[in-house]
Amino acid sequence: MKPIYLDYASITPLDPIVQKEMNKWSREPLNPSSIHSLGVKAKKALDHSRKDVAEFLNAHADEIVFTGGGTEANALALEGAGRAVHRNSFTKPHLIISAIEHSSIIETANMLEKHKVEVTRLPVNKNGHVSLEQLKEAIKPETYMVSIMTANNEIGTIEPIKEITRVINEERKKRRKGEKENKNSNCNCNSQSSIFTYPLFHTDACQADIYEDLNVEKLGVDLLTLDASKAYGPRGVGALYIKRNTPIEPLTYGGGQENGLRAGTENTPGIVGFAKALQLAQKNMVKENRRVGELRDYFEREVKKIRPDAIVNGVFNSNSNCNSNCLRVPNISNITFPNIDAEMLLLRLDSRGVAVSTKSACLRDEDESYVLRAIGADSKSSIRFSFGKWTKKGELDKTLSILKKLLVQGLPLY
Amino acid sequence: MKPIYLDYASITPLDPIVQKEMNKWSREPLNPSSIHSLGVKAKKALDHSRKDVAEFLNAHADEIVFTGGGTEANALALEGAGRAVHRNSFTKPHLIISAIEHSSIIETANMLEKHKVEVTRLPVNKNGHVSLEQLKEAIKPETYMVSIMTANNEIGTIEPIKEITRVINEERKKRRKGEKENKNSNCNCNSQSSIFTYPLFHTDACQADIYEDLNVEKLGVDLLTLDASKAYGPRGVGALYIKRNTPIEPLTYGGGQENGLRAGTENTPGIVGFAKALQLAQKNMVKENRRVGELRDYFEREVKKIRPDAIVNGVFNSNSNCNSNCLRVPNISNITFPNIDAEMLLLRLDSRGVAVSTKSACLRDEDESYVLRAIGADSKSSIRFSFGKWTKKGELDKTLSILKKLLVQGLPLY
Repeated sequence: MKPIYLDYASITPLDPIVQKEMNKWSREPLNPSSIHSLGVKAKKALDHSRKDVAEFLNAHADEIVFTGGGTEANALALEGAGRAVHRNSFTKPHLIISAIEHSSIIETANMLEKHKVEVTRLPVNKNGHVSLEQLKEAIKPETYMVSIMTANNEIGTIEPIKEITRVINEERKKRRKGEKENKNSNCNCNSQSSIFTYPLFHTDACQADIYEDLNVEKLGVDLLTLDASKAYGPRGVGALYIKRNTPIEPLTYGGGQENGLRAGTENTPGIVGFAKALQLAQKNMVKENRRVGELRDYFEREVKKIRPDAIVNGVFNSNSNCNSNCLRVPNISNITFPNIDAEMLLLRLDSRGVAVSTKSACLRDEDESYVLRAIGADSKSSIRFSFGKWTKKGELDKTLSILKKLLVQGLPLY
Repeated sequence: MKPIYLDYASITPLDPIVQKEMNKWSREPLNPSSIHSLGVKAKKALDHSRKDVAEFLNAHADEIVFTGGGTEANALALEGAGRAVHRNSFTKPHLIISAIEHSSIIETANMLEKHKVEVTRLPVNKNGHVSLEQLKEAIKPETYMVSIMTANNEIGTIEPIKEITRVINEERKKRRKGEKENKNSNCNCNSQSSIFTYPLFHTDACQADIYEDLNVEKLGVDLLTLDASKAYGPRGVGALYIKRNTPIEPLTYGGGQENGLRAGTENTPGIVGFAKALQLAQKNMVKENRRVGELRDYFEREVKKIRPDAIVNGVFNSNSNCNSNCLRVPNISNITFPNIDAEMLLLRLDSRGVAVSTKSACLRDEDESYVLRAIGADSKSSIRFSFGKWTKKGELDKTLSILKKLLVQGLPLY
């Protein structure tokens, strides 16, 4: 029996259309840095893909840096910008993240903290949202970056990116004004620092690229991370959008590829596939948002019928005027089943052919979900069901019937 | 007409057998960190590949870290080991490289130099070999690493890796003796530093993995870099061998993958393909060494007939008892055509369907080959012909006939 895959938030299957596009390129010996015709062909494919990815984000092609995945792009954003900052006039650069960022942000921040960067971790409310007031309070003159994810990978919460941009722009305006006053007073201040480009705003959009409009101009971000393996694209390919004139340094050095910001021969077939995947995502976004959102709502309603005490984590306020889509991505249902051992439930579902997860796959086996802890949910009794392009209502019905057997008539699960 | 590809040293085409192996895995949503059966399946594939790569190197599976390519593996070796060293008792760590390393080593060393690491760049002789005497003289008590490539990517020279290991082991013995004497005198020295594990020996073997026996035990290295795209494997996949107990820190942080040394969801299909490619390389190594070496020798002889003044760069001493294979990899012929503009020759060959290069693709357009400069060769008049698995004698004859037309009867090339 074909397994029912309800773990799309962990990794998405490769779209056959994307694979077909990649296969066109994978056998050819393409090194975009070679001068001969084959190199030129690779360079053209790369340029074309870069343009496509830029269009997806409403950005310029020269603002896209391809990486080996979302984790590397996040590292480049936080550490690369941090390295650039050290040369300026910050004595102890300050970084703000949320408490529920992906582990690649959390752990990079922990590492930076050991290297003379001050880190503030903003708490979130029970829905997983950061508070704009707390953000305003946290920003200091030394804050070089605010990094808040677009959508959370465990509970699907969409953070108020545009509102955060407004807070950051106000801070920049303040710094610019201060700079101007300093200049007027003929002070001997370090004008080279361009202090008013800070704080930079980075968002990890890996979990949002299929469902959210990631128009960087509208969002107002300076840096944005994408990952192909969350968007029906290939594994091992990601990208960092870096707004023009953003001060940043590379993490790897060598052949000067990717505008000097990411050395190493480019993975041409992977990048071509990534661009194709994003193109398909854009084309299907409205339709898929509705379709998957309806499946998700159906699933949650039916779960509530089976177990009225089940709690949907993240945002679910059926009394609000806003439909649930505007506050979280439509493909994630993180559900607490009180008094149930989630890991046991996961294994029982797995043995019946249903793949789900209890937390981000990027957490060590022994670690509990810090995301669920941060929103005050029971991390030991919660399951993440996540849906996607090939999820059918029939699969959900099958899953619901298995859940019913396990949860109501059930085998011991606690 | 199908182009004649004589640029295998830049990037190798993907082997169809490797592609077939990868295709088995590429459509499945495999995240080795997921707990469910699909995750376990991915984990098994990953473990299996890790074991295969370890066997290729005669290493332990836990000594293999998969990366996004050779450049990243080189960065992890030099910078990762550098980060670990700072915690020990080195005040200004010292790094030794050769002057003809790949740009990813050269540029990483340049970057480290800006961050309080002292760098020595060993010169090479006209054959591209480092001198063991000069290496001995260069090693200091603060030397944390010696990084010398196995085979050069432009001229194919094989460096004396085992002999370098002996020099390094002597140095370690000396340090160990010093440590012991210090202990005997009950000094208050920093014993935690395990100073006698230094200097570490890293070799970039990207250009050697198809042709050289990379048995790490026999070579005696502590770290070794591999790249799949030089071995008929996929793009964007590499590995770093790290001997057990080697002090090293990661460059990217997150989900704790790759033994905590390289965060990010693993590229399962890519890694599976990489392992398959190395398996094929090992199986065909003896045969391919002979076959390609004979083609190379034939090509060089014929070139000499067309242009007796042509100079084969790197090693070519037909009077020695050693056949040319024991001093350079068999797939690279770097040839100087005196008074010829190499770039012009490259373009004319290209327009006739022959792909070659003038230097490493990982050099910016405006840069000359520092490798050729280092061996005293004319970098403006040299072409790298590099051969591989699908190179046929007929292709070389065709190339030779085109070369003859261009070089003897010829169009202006200078």
